[in-house]
Amino acid sequence: MIIALKQDAGRDEVRNFASALEKQGVKIHFSEGASQTVLGLVGDTTLIDEESLLAHHLVEKVIRVQEPYKRANRKFHPADTRIDVPGADGVVRHIGSGYLGIIAGPCSVESREQIVEVAGAVKAAGAGLLRGGAFKPRTSPYSFQGMGCDGLNLLLEAKKETGLPIVTELMAIHQLEVFDEVDIIQVGARNMQNFTLLKELGRCRKPILLKRGLASTITELLMAAEYLMAGGNDQIILCERGIRTFDSHTRNTLDLSAIPALKRQTHLPVIVDPSHATGIAWMVPAMSKAAIAAGADGIIVEVHNNPEAALCDGEQSITPEEFGGLMGILRKYAELEGKKI
Amino acid sequence: MIIALKQDAGRDEVRNFASALEKQGVKIHFSEGASQTVLGLVGDTTLIDEESLLAHHLVEKVIRVQEPYKRANRKFHPADTRIDVPGADGVVRHIGSGYLGIIAGPCSVESREQIVEVAGAVKAAGAGLLRGGAFKPRTSPYSFQGMGCDGLNLLLEAKKETGLPIVTELMAIHQLEVFDEVDIIQVGARNMQNFTLLKELGRCRKPILLKRGLASTITELLMAAEYLMAGGNDQIILCERGIRTFDSHTRNTLDLSAIPALKRQTHLPVIVDPSHATGIAWMVPAMSKAAIAAGADGIIVEVHNNPEAALCDGEQSITPEEFGGLMGILRKYAELEGKKI
Amino acid sequence: MIIALKQDAGRDEVRNFASALEKQGVKIHFSEGASQTVLGLVGDTTLIDEESLLAHHLVEKVIRVQEPYKRANRKFHPADTRIDVPGADGVVRHIGSGYLGIIAGPCSVESREQIVEVAGAVKAAGAGLLRGGAFKPRTSPYSFQGMGCDGLNLLLEAKKETGLPIVTELMAIHQLEVFDEVDIIQVGARNMQNFTLLKELGRCRKPILLKRGLASTITELLMAAEYLMAGGNDQIILCERGIRTFDSHTRNTLDLSAIPALKRQTHLPVIVDPSHATGIAWMVPAMSKAAIAAGADGIIVEVHNNPEAALCDGEQSITPEEFGGLMGILRKYAELEGKKI
Amino acid sequence: MIIALKQDAGRDEVRNFASALEKQGVKIHFSEGASQTVLGLVGDTTLIDEESLLAHHLVEKVIRVQEPYKRANRKFHPADTRIDVPGADGVVRHIGSGYLGIIAGPCSVESREQIVEVAGAVKAAGAGLLRGGAFKPRTSPYSFQGMGCDGLNLLLEAKKETGLPIVTELMAIHQLEVFDEVDIIQVGARNMQNFTLLKELGRCRKPILLKRGLASTITELLMAAEYLMAGGNDQIILCERGIRTFDSHTRNTLDLSAIPALKRQTHLPVIVDPSHATGIAWMVPAMSKAAIAAGADGIIVEVHNNPEAALCDGEQSITPEEFGGLMGILRKYAELEGKKI
Repeated sequence: MIIALKQDAGRDEVRNFASALEKQGVKIHFSEGASQTVLGLVGDTTLIDEESLLAHHLVEKVIRVQEPYKRANRKFHPADTRIDVPGADGVVRHIGSGYLGIIAGPCSVESREQIVEVAGAVKAAGAGLLRGGAFKPRTSPYSFQGMGCDGLNLLLEAKKETGLPIVTELMAIHQLEVFDEVDIIQVGARNMQNFTLLKELGRCRKPILLKRGLASTITELLMAAEYLMAGGNDQIILCERGIRTFDSHTRNTLDLSAIPALKRQTHLPVIVDPSHATGIAWMVPAMSKAAIAAGADGIIVEVHNNPEAALCDGEQSITPEEFGGLMGILRKYAELEGKKI
Repeated sequence: MIIALKQDAGRDEVRNFASALEKQGVKIHFSEGASQTVLGLVGDTTLIDEESLLAHHLVEKVIRVQEPYKRANRKFHPADTRIDVPGADGVVRHIGSGYLGIIAGPCSVESREQIVEVAGAVKAAGAGLLRGGAFKPRTSPYSFQGMGCDGLNLLLEAKKETGLPIVTELMAIHQLEVFDEVDIIQVGARNMQNFTLLKELGRCRKPILLKRGLASTITELLMAAEYLMAGGNDQIILCERGIRTFDSHTRNTLDLSAIPALKRQTHLPVIVDPSHATGIAWMVPAMSKAAIAAGADGIIVEVHNNPEAALCDGEQSITPEEFGGLMGILRKYAELEGKKI
Repeated sequence: MIIALKQDAGRDEVRNFASALEKQGVKIHFSEGASQTVLGLVGDTTLIDEESLLAHHLVEKVIRVQEPYKRANRKFHPADTRIDVPGADGVVRHIGSGYLGIIAGPCSVESREQIVEVAGAVKAAGAGLLRGGAFKPRTSPYSFQGMGCDGLNLLLEAKKETGLPIVTELMAIHQLEVFDEVDIIQVGARNMQNFTLLKELGRCRKPILLKRGLASTITELLMAAEYLMAGGNDQIILCERGIRTFDSHTRNTLDLSAIPALKRQTHLPVIVDPSHATGIAWMVPAMSKAAIAAGADGIIVEVHNNPEAALCDGEQSITPEEFGGLMGILRKYAELEGKKI
Repeated sequence: MIIALKQDAGRDEVRNFASALEKQGVKIHFSEGASQTVLGLVGDTTLIDEESLLAHHLVEKVIRVQEPYKRANRKFHPADTRIDVPGADGVVRHIGSGYLGIIAGPCSVESREQIVEVAGAVKAAGAGLLRGGAFKPRTSPYSFQGMGCDGLNLLLEAKKETGLPIVTELMAIHQLEVFDEVDIIQVGARNMQNFTLLKELGRCRKPILLKRGLASTITELLMAAEYLMAGGNDQIILCERGIRTFDSHTRNTLDLSAIPALKRQTHLPVIVDPSHATGIAWMVPAMSKAAIAAGADGIIVEVHNNPEAALCDGEQSITPEEFGGLMGILRKYAELEGKKI
């Protein structure tokens, strides 16, 4: 960490400021120029708070050279993390480190018939995991809020019937008691900085699918992962799902350059949700291909057997047939990228 | 709500689609043009889900004419809502409907001495309520997370000593049990769409200070208020605190045009947080004045007796002396606006 | 176009308003609901100004169903436009309609040696066209502004030596007199809405490479193309080059979903500039692959023989060797997409 | 300027790199830490290009401590710049340094009657200058493009009749020949980085009203001013007119915190355009007051005698009566701020 001091900083004041910093466990190197003094902090600066520094009257600018996260940092953990998820069918699905995770299913669980049919169809097409929402975060209190525990039970039935591991969103910590048989817990974009929830989930030992917030930087996403990992949970899957920009031709703007950026900074797998990012079913195939080409470790796609009758997000769901066609193409892209589905 | 159908929509299909809609309790008016049919939905469309409509293969565009919120809507509740908060000193503070709420205090409670000293100083300067964080949402798991229950107890001591009602943030619903003597519960920007939390707080009967999310539209803010109000809590204060944009000269971009926009659409009071919006102490006076001039019903300002030593957000805190100076100026602006402090 | 009127609109006023609209060449269909009248405008609404409508006291909302552009619109020109650019070597390069245009070269022309060397290298690697800046738009008046006419002459020498057609930016209309032998004229992102320039270039009969503005919607990009096409120039290549968002991990945010969105709405070819979008050389390969996978008709990439010594934008330039490696990979992606390089 | 080098930078390489930098006229101070070397550049770094530095393989991060602009910089010119504009009536209007400039008039000049009537009305209400567009930048080539030279002549007639100095937009440099009697030349938001235009206008000796681009940072705005000032023109007025964000409740998001930020960094006057920023007439008064309260040196407001019939931007124009009412209020705000109208 480098701290540029104001031009009029007095020598004694600077010394006092520096010794206060050294008490936080770092060493200070001084660079006293003709007009400005620069401090270089050597050691572990993870615990040093940039904002507090900026409040100090001597400080002009602060530049962080080290990243503020450790456990999620590839520098301290060079090898790719691979998430292994065993299915009820005895097959283990892998995500990361050369394996593409393909997660598919409806936005919401709506009925036994619907979820079992979609689960069978996406498995047949080659999906490795089943997604489906039971507890739904909705902008309006008057919109369908998901089937709750009943939905979760139907999802578990689909899991039994197909053997597919399941991914579903947890919205509050008290729901954890009914998530026993859930294979991957999803933290939604709106909860990415629900720090209380992150701390609790850090204590749990299931893989977490952590979605990037609508207006979160990739550093903030990694800090959210760090919250989970600081609690001891190291099975984290990151998910890019579009950010909010001035542009409204898609629901959000899919930030595919986040894939190489994240992959360089962290060892955690990174997947893409083209359905929520675009909000438009016919764009899903193009953006799925682009995600794989950009280096993603998988995708999470909404598939519905009858999008027009979907109780939520039907406009972004593709049909099982379309998903089957997409899988055929993605296998070729995976091969080009040297990855296994 | 107006639905423009695709140009090739068949007459029978359109009739079927329309009768399905009518089952949701609205009346349909048809406008069959030479090339395109337009449906006008009359009645309560709050419950009709735009996204589901967009998934239908007949639908080209949907335009919502009515707002999707009701209880927060000025159309159904023309008179300004005024929030009344009695202090331990027997004085009732008002926010909204001609009264400016002035909420001041440190970002975090740090010690008995600090919070009591700041509380006394801001009261003397004319603040009506005391703010102070006990549970702090922090980007890094390694940053100071607030003093928790101990902090809350110190805040209650400051309340007793000064009589000022207190405002503090609740981060998770289980904290509610220790919030008995808190006067206004703050929902932070990152929790604005924590729908589980909103539903629970809707059942409580304390005023809620609801901060706008970093990337939330004003409709989304009003829908979050609607979640609270749908539960029966009608004491909601909205707070503009800056949005995230490309621009980084301030921490966030304070959207003051949200003030007149919100005031036209809702009867709820709207206040401004210039400290978090800008993240820069010396900008707080200018933006406080501008907030009042734009029609805000109050401000919430960070004041710290020693900003340089603050454990959090010191760079945006003003001193009690600066706050005193600001209050002198704000009284003149309040007078121009015909409002009471 | 659909116009929702205010609820209290009087019948006579509405009739007068409608007949005024009919004088602009459209037919009006009325839908008089219980509480609201909706007008449907049938005919060519390209000339009708939404903003003027919104100023009318009767009007609540306006929804445009037809796009405001015609010549750029795929509805009126379903077949893909292919741009053909003959080189000095007798070979014609194609962009669009199944052909990928690969444009490579340095940000700025710096010397004869540099441009000729890079031109030879990118041609050998398989680039179809040479880019190089002579007139450079720079944020600071103190930065290198390009070699101007001298740079242009060097570019023409490289064209002669390699036979590659050349692409270079024109910043002001008076420069047109020295652009005689330039094969494709680039309009930079900052000039995308320099309407005077667009009008003049609409009269010229060379292909135009039109870069999307940093904060331009895709409709605005298509309207800028429409300015060029309204003047009679129908050889327009659109270029996505990143938009400005809150996110700063890359210089701009590459909006790859703009590719399928544009391709659906227009017949014009769409290419991608991964160098300017990311500003980071090591990201260029990943984003180039993703661009092709998303359906782009080509890429424009910065290649420099000595990026560290580049007078501008070196941090985003790849070396000729890296470009050679990238081309090998892109050929496989092109094959998957059924496109020719 | 501070340059943090990569951790593995070799000592000899660093010395070579440093001497290359010293040839650009700066002195280098070394800070060699245990793991990282930091260079401090002392002297005039205005000419040093950050982007070139970032391309160097030794460089990890660059932090600019000095601003990259000089002539616009308050550090080198502490006193406020005041722009003096004499009217045809012998009265000199001042903008900046304690004087509020009030510029009002229609978006476009439409007829002699219209412009003369509005000019008379705004003068009577207390405006100091008349605005009116003759050459109009419009998103669509099919929209009204302004009356051109005819419009300019009508504006000059209004100037003669009322004595008010006039402000109008120049879109291309060749128009300068008809701008002889224009008092202040406006550079529109879309031309803020039309560097060719800025260079030419730098040679002219009239005040320039420079509007902030839709996605421009305030540093970029100051660099655009620097382009003008580098040519010798020091009469620059900056104008905040809203930036493009995710938020669409107003046309753009008025960034009022830019006012104190700019005023601290530059000596140039800063005014606000609430009409274009919001695009909504009824918001203009609230945002005009807020602008003055935030420290603006004036406003530029659209006033039209018949907004509903305006050929452009009618939805954001207020009537002369509304303007008169607003002026009454603004005088009180000016008084509070200690400024003269």
